[in-house]
Amino acid sequence: MTDKKIYAFEEGNGSMKNLLGGKGAGLAEMTKIGLPVPPGFIITTEVCKEYQKTKKIDEDLTSEILEYLHKLEEKAGKIFGDKANPLLVSVRSGAPVSMPGMMDTILNLGLNDDTVEGLKELTNNERFAYDSYRRFIQMFGDVAMEIPHNEFAKILDNHKEKHGLKNDTDLTSEMLKDIIADYKILYQEKTGEEFPQDPMMQLSRSIEAVFKSWNNPRAISYRNINKISDELGTAVSIVMMVFGNMGDDSATGVAFTRNPATGEKKLYGEFLTNAQGEDVVAGIRTPLSIDKLGEFSPTIFNQLKEAGEKLEQHYKDMQDMEFTIEKGKLYMLQTRTGKRTAQAAVKVAVDMVNENLITKEESILRITPVQIDHLLHKMIDPSVKVSPIAKGLPASPGAASGKVVFDVKEATKRGKDGEAIILVRLETTPEDIEGMAHSEGILTTRGGMTAHAAVVARGMGKPCIVGAEDIKIDAESNRFTTNGIEVKKDEIITIDGSLGNVILGEVTMVEPELTSELRQLLAYSDELRELGIRANANTPEEAIKALDYGAEGIGLCRTERMFLSPERLPLMQDMIISESKEERSISLGKLKDMQKKDFYDILIAMDGLPVIIRLLDPPLHEFLPQRERLEKEIAELKEKGNDPELLKKKEKALQRSQELAEFNPMIGFRGCRVGIVYPEIYEMQVTAIIEAAIQLKKEGHDPKPKIMLPLISHVNEMKTLKERATTVITNIFRKEGTTIDYQIGTMIEVPRATLTADQIAEYADFFSFGTNDLTQATFAFSRDDAEATFIPTYLKDGILPTEPFITIDQDGVGKLVRIGVVLGRKTKNSLEIGICGEHGGDPKSIEFFHYAGLNYVSCSPFRVPIARLAAAQVAVKEKLGKE
Amino acid sequence: MTDKKIYAFEEGNGSMKNLLGGKGAGLAEMTKIGLPVPPGFIITTEVCKEYQKTKKIDEDLTSEILEYLHKLEEKAGKIFGDKANPLLVSVRSGAPVSMPGMMDTILNLGLNDDTVEGLKELTNNERFAYDSYRRFIQMFGDVAMEIPHNEFAKILDNHKEKHGLKNDTDLTSEMLKDIIADYKILYQEKTGEEFPQDPMMQLSRSIEAVFKSWNNPRAISYRNINKISDELGTAVSIVMMVFGNMGDDSATGVAFTRNPATGEKKLYGEFLTNAQGEDVVAGIRTPLSIDKLGEFSPTIFNQLKEAGEKLEQHYKDMQDMEFTIEKGKLYMLQTRTGKRTAQAAVKVAVDMVNENLITKEESILRITPVQIDHLLHKMIDPSVKVSPIAKGLPASPGAASGKVVFDVKEATKRGKDGEAIILVRLETTPEDIEGMAHSEGILTTRGGMTAHAAVVARGMGKPCIVGAEDIKIDAESNRFTTNGIEVKKDEIITIDGSLGNVILGEVTMVEPELTSELRQLLAYSDELRELGIRANANTPEEAIKALDYGAEGIGLCRTERMFLSPERLPLMQDMIISESKEERSISLGKLKDMQKKDFYDILIAMDGLPVIIRLLDPPLHEFLPQRERLEKEIAELKEKGNDPELLKKKEKALQRSQELAEFNPMIGFRGCRVGIVYPEIYEMQVTAIIEAAIQLKKEGHDPKPKIMLPLISHVNEMKTLKERATTVITNIFRKEGTTIDYQIGTMIEVPRATLTADQIAEYADFFSFGTNDLTQATFAFSRDDAEATFIPTYLKDGILPTEPFITIDQDGVGKLVRIGVVLGRKTKNSLEIGICGEHGGDPKSIEFFHYAGLNYVSCSPFRVPIARLAAAQVAVKEKLGKE
Repeated sequence: MTDKKIYAFEEGNGSMKNLLGGKGAGLAEMTKIGLPVPPGFIITTEVCKEYQKTKKIDEDLTSEILEYLHKLEEKAGKIFGDKANPLLVSVRSGAPVSMPGMMDTILNLGLNDDTVEGLKELTNNERFAYDSYRRFIQMFGDVAMEIPHNEFAKILDNHKEKHGLKNDTDLTSEMLKDIIADYKILYQEKTGEEFPQDPMMQLSRSIEAVFKSWNNPRAISYRNINKISDELGTAVSIVMMVFGNMGDDSATGVAFTRNPATGEKKLYGEFLTNAQGEDVVAGIRTPLSIDKLGEFSPTIFNQLKEAGEKLEQHYKDMQDMEFTIEKGKLYMLQTRTGKRTAQAAVKVAVDMVNENLITKEESILRITPVQIDHLLHKMIDPSVKVSPIAKGLPASPGAASGKVVFDVKEATKRGKDGEAIILVRLETTPEDIEGMAHSEGILTTRGGMTAHAAVVARGMGKPCIVGAEDIKIDAESNRFTTNGIEVKKDEIITIDGSLGNVILGEVTMVEPELTSELRQLLAYSDELRELGIRANANTPEEAIKALDYGAEGIGLCRTERMFLSPERLPLMQDMIISESKEERSISLGKLKDMQKKDFYDILIAMDGLPVIIRLLDPPLHEFLPQRERLEKEIAELKEKGNDPELLKKKEKALQRSQELAEFNPMIGFRGCRVGIVYPEIYEMQVTAIIEAAIQLKKEGHDPKPKIMLPLISHVNEMKTLKERATTVITNIFRKEGTTIDYQIGTMIEVPRATLTADQIAEYADFFSFGTNDLTQATFAFSRDDAEATFIPTYLKDGILPTEPFITIDQDGVGKLVRIGVVLGRKTKNSLEIGICGEHGGDPKSIEFFHYAGLNYVSCSPFRVPIARLAAAQVAVKEKLGKE
Repeated sequence: MTDKKIYAFEEGNGSMKNLLGGKGAGLAEMTKIGLPVPPGFIITTEVCKEYQKTKKIDEDLTSEILEYLHKLEEKAGKIFGDKANPLLVSVRSGAPVSMPGMMDTILNLGLNDDTVEGLKELTNNERFAYDSYRRFIQMFGDVAMEIPHNEFAKILDNHKEKHGLKNDTDLTSEMLKDIIADYKILYQEKTGEEFPQDPMMQLSRSIEAVFKSWNNPRAISYRNINKISDELGTAVSIVMMVFGNMGDDSATGVAFTRNPATGEKKLYGEFLTNAQGEDVVAGIRTPLSIDKLGEFSPTIFNQLKEAGEKLEQHYKDMQDMEFTIEKGKLYMLQTRTGKRTAQAAVKVAVDMVNENLITKEESILRITPVQIDHLLHKMIDPSVKVSPIAKGLPASPGAASGKVVFDVKEATKRGKDGEAIILVRLETTPEDIEGMAHSEGILTTRGGMTAHAAVVARGMGKPCIVGAEDIKIDAESNRFTTNGIEVKKDEIITIDGSLGNVILGEVTMVEPELTSELRQLLAYSDELRELGIRANANTPEEAIKALDYGAEGIGLCRTERMFLSPERLPLMQDMIISESKEERSISLGKLKDMQKKDFYDILIAMDGLPVIIRLLDPPLHEFLPQRERLEKEIAELKEKGNDPELLKKKEKALQRSQELAEFNPMIGFRGCRVGIVYPEIYEMQVTAIIEAAIQLKKEGHDPKPKIMLPLISHVNEMKTLKERATTVITNIFRKEGTTIDYQIGTMIEVPRATLTADQIAEYADFFSFGTNDLTQATFAFSRDDAEATFIPTYLKDGILPTEPFITIDQDGVGKLVRIGVVLGRKTKNSLEIGICGEHGGDPKSIEFFHYAGLNYVSCSPFRVPIARLAAAQVAVKEKLGKE
């Protein structure tokens, strides 16, 4: 640590964020690269840290401040506290990372009863001078001395009322003087001392206020939530005031170097002539588009454009700039990385690669997987201007429109009947899950990002807003109000779960599509990633979607879903209620032909790419009708008495359903266990797969089927089933007079399989981690039950840091994955290992799978682009880490 | 390998089992220590192995056989094949380990049409000579040449019928000659050659038959089942014949050096005068007790006693001896370790320690945990006066009641279906084993203590009575009569295998208790074992039982079972259907007082010993009435309409029951998850435990409560619950003005807990593996479902080598246990770690837990003695392995 407490802008640079704060470093950097920045200096974060111990501004610091103030006076050609030619400054906080909750800016510091007169003379604008003084007292009182903002507002309102005025701008100098007098009285009442006339005291009070604000509750809480160290401290920048409100040759504004909504490369922003920065933000006057700045002054417009280009060249990213024009001279007051929409982020990143501003590696690190996720959800047409009636937390992305319904049962029923419903609740509980599932979107007035509604909606992929506190629900009269607007049941609203906006009425939506820029960005990702990306797809349609989204194969094709269509389910049910192997064979024979067609279609869609087909996994009773329904049907059939055949069949189904009922079906008679006890089921499926592949081969295609056995827990299961399948396949090859390439592998989804992966690998051609089931067993959490009961509490209380079914639990489940990989490869050095649980589409989990050494991840087609990006990001980060 | 193919008895010794087989080594050893063994020699197992390759007896072997035969002739003073003074021999197989399924003995080898005349002259007993010849042809034909036994029996029966005779002994020499002639014809018909008159050919054929029998299907199957190497091979012993049937000064018998039923140190056995060994085994004549041998000849009785003592001194174990007395001279034909009942095994082991024959270490290795298990089986209440309807030999101790069944297949089927069956047979054969296994007990009307039924039943630990000669079975009419009483199929009888009593109807049984010898043996075990032994006990009664059985504390006290009594369940239900914490507190307050009493009672019972109390574990809905029942009750209440209060309560219970219903309750909302979501439940339990302990301490006792949290999967669950409990306890200490020692630990029963045991150990004072749940989750096997569906198939097909809920799966679950131990102790070096799953009472699992470094196992009180022994055995074995 150096003893230097203060840096003039020209003494610092952009890399000194930790010492000078983000804003300070930005100002120093802009100064350094020759942009017109008003002179100023920065008190370092080290001083702040010291202050937290001593709680006072010591003499050393005071004398250093004086020293830099003198230098500033020299540069400005003005004197701090001088009546004739007063130097005014702004004081701002600025931590190394952007941190809301800290002290706001204080402008016009240095004004007092004397200097205000000097300002008046200097600007020849009495009203401006007193308005500036009035504003300063208000800001200093509010920001530095914690006098409630509305107390000042009340005084202002009283005076306007007294004179029958509507706008602040209508106040005359005399009126402003009266207000100043009242402000001073308020100040004395609240602080017990007179408003400080000494500019040095104003300055040191303001600096202390910044330091104190580092530990105000809002700041502490923000740091906690965002995991920012309490040790960073904040810097303070003191800058010469420039005035955009010095007349019609003055102005103030903000500008992005590119369009933050679309990414278009063109200055974007707005400005107000004869105004101070806060006027732009306050929205009292409608600002002009930055396009009009050329009309105001072509020179300054060009200067600003050049400044933007210079900053982009320098920072290699889109900038968000604040500027002020004082009497025809441009001053740059701030620059920072510009916030942008997901769409803009992608375009900017790709454009900057084309402009040789950044590398491909850098471009992919500019986008978060969450942004891609947003781009892949239905969203509000960006060309439509919306006026939110309320705002909440963006708990689950995407937009949805529907009729407002407050009652969960009603939502369930009407949703089932096909109506588009937005469920509006104080909060949700486990009993509401069905209603949520049948609504288009969920809106709650309470709760945070980990509330029940948020967690469940994200799991369901439904748009959701939580904690929209402005909304007051009046359930009895079936309506809600927000900011004076009343919305009745059945009125249509739109929620934007990506932004947290609640909008009245229906809004045009756009279906997500891959823009050419996104395709380009994902192409960069493909160049950079090491993990393969496959998709979980059960139908040819899904396979085609997956291909379009960039999947390199199918990592999981669930065959059981193929049995649920109306013409097949009865055959499946016949098979299950069969009493003998022979009877079963008849239904299975018919199912085989259908399955063969399924596999033919999916293999042809993925011609030349691997398709991993998982054999039947769920318990058989899942295919039978619910017992309650069967009992009802049987009662009816008995009464009618006209179809004894059907009655017998239904009775058999009921009996079988009772036989097959289980206490804990998730860990019961399913997966390979069914395959072992009823060999003919898997024999049928294997036959269908291999026959379909042979047909394709004969037709000149290149099918790559991989047969996957589910729920293996013991090597002997793998061994037995592989042997049986091999026998079946060998017979087909002999019969057909040809062979095809195929593999037989297994899901690794039971803890025991990971622990004995070395044994299992002896018989498996590939592994695919089923991390959904693995997470269930490793935690002994039944997902359906856990998410409806204790997981919300666990997340709220921080017992679980993250929802383990969304982001893989590295300490527990992850350890088993690593054990499985190490043991599997111990037996087979080049064993292909992937993952096909939902974690395959989760960026944090993908990072883990990269480091665990997997060959690929497989996720839903919809998440393939996210996975491509996430996989590239971790590969790039690893490379950077190694450099 | 040596080239020596044959050993005379005096050339070998008892340690040469691998080379000479068990029987051969025994004969050599007896010869060596000076016992009267008939001379003979042994062809080694190496020769057998060689034969398996060459499939012939080569010249080298033939000449060596001739050499040893000459030496034998010299010792015997007889000549092989000599008409005047013929040497006869027996030929027996003998593998290194006892192995049924191999070739039986052939006696009287060397007899032919000539030598039979010599034998006649020599013994001056024509009938004996021809009977011997007849027997030889039959044995040689049956055993060596595989002519079906019943073909010979048919010839014999025909002749008896022709002469109107009933017993074999009534046959005259002339009749026997006719039979011999018919036997020879049969022989020629079946083998295509004449019965060999050349004794050398008889001998070499017999030796080959022994070698061939090594690979007969029965032998192979026995080796497979018992995991005996196919590489061992069998030896062949050739021994000079001695005859117990040479007149009234001859006899043959078997004797145990101690009573194999009780262990009493006294010769035990039986003999038949003027008989050959096979007559004893066949059970045709009822033998005399060995006590009567003194009357036959005091000298020989003493010789036999001395031989027994010498053998015991030598072998350090109880011996089972075969002997023959030929014309007043005792010959020892075989000795082996005597099979015994569990009770005898314990007494013999303890007595032999007292006699300084064996060490304590050796004594505990003499008993199998299974035997202890048998001793802990029930017997007839001694206070009940029983009137036996028949008496037999007490062949296998313990008592059993069941329905009389005569047919073995029927017994198998009905036994499997859960009926209690007593199998009643003339005698049993190896085909009857399955029926015996599925019966409660076995009763035969023939045979002695060494008959098939007796030996097998003792092995199975089933009560068995043999030789109940008063009972006459009439199989055709499905009944038996005894002393005028008729008992039909399906009537219930009770057999007392310890006393030999058959009783009509069911009799009150008593649970077994520990004999003084067993207590002594377990005391040795306690000295030698390293694992602590605790019991799983939920009530004071169980705790007292556990103490009596030697438990050193309670490893698992399940508190939820305390809520199931009629006066408590309604309170528990009230608590569950409470809608608020306040409502819940009222029911919990009442439950607390009851729980405090529970804990007081159990802590006082285990005064000074650790008592691990597990907080509530099962899902709450388990305490609510079944939904079907509630629905019915509600319907009834509605109809009556007289108790609206109760109706409301029932409706609430139904609603709550629906809310709490789960898809997979085993891995759902239970254990610490309920404790976290409803803190007041665990607070109540912790309060009850600590208050009970404080009361005990104030009364001068030494309570050692240890609070155990169930189903921890994440360190934060442990941390949160421990903090909450500590707060509760600190408050009680403050209120009561005193403190007690306590610990807070956790079950390790979720895979994730083992994988993160290092984190969990930060907050846990102890670990206790819950291997039931851990096995379920590690395999993803719901025990209830798996055992009802696929596990039987898995065991039958060998997919699972053992039932993993009985014997711990070392490769999978065991690996997690080891990981948990290593990680837990990494954090806390001296962390106490135990196991309280059912595996805690399984000897094989106990062996694993010993090596895994656990501090103790905890099992049901009933299995505590077994655990004490098993723990000692593994400790001794480990010590021996290290020596």
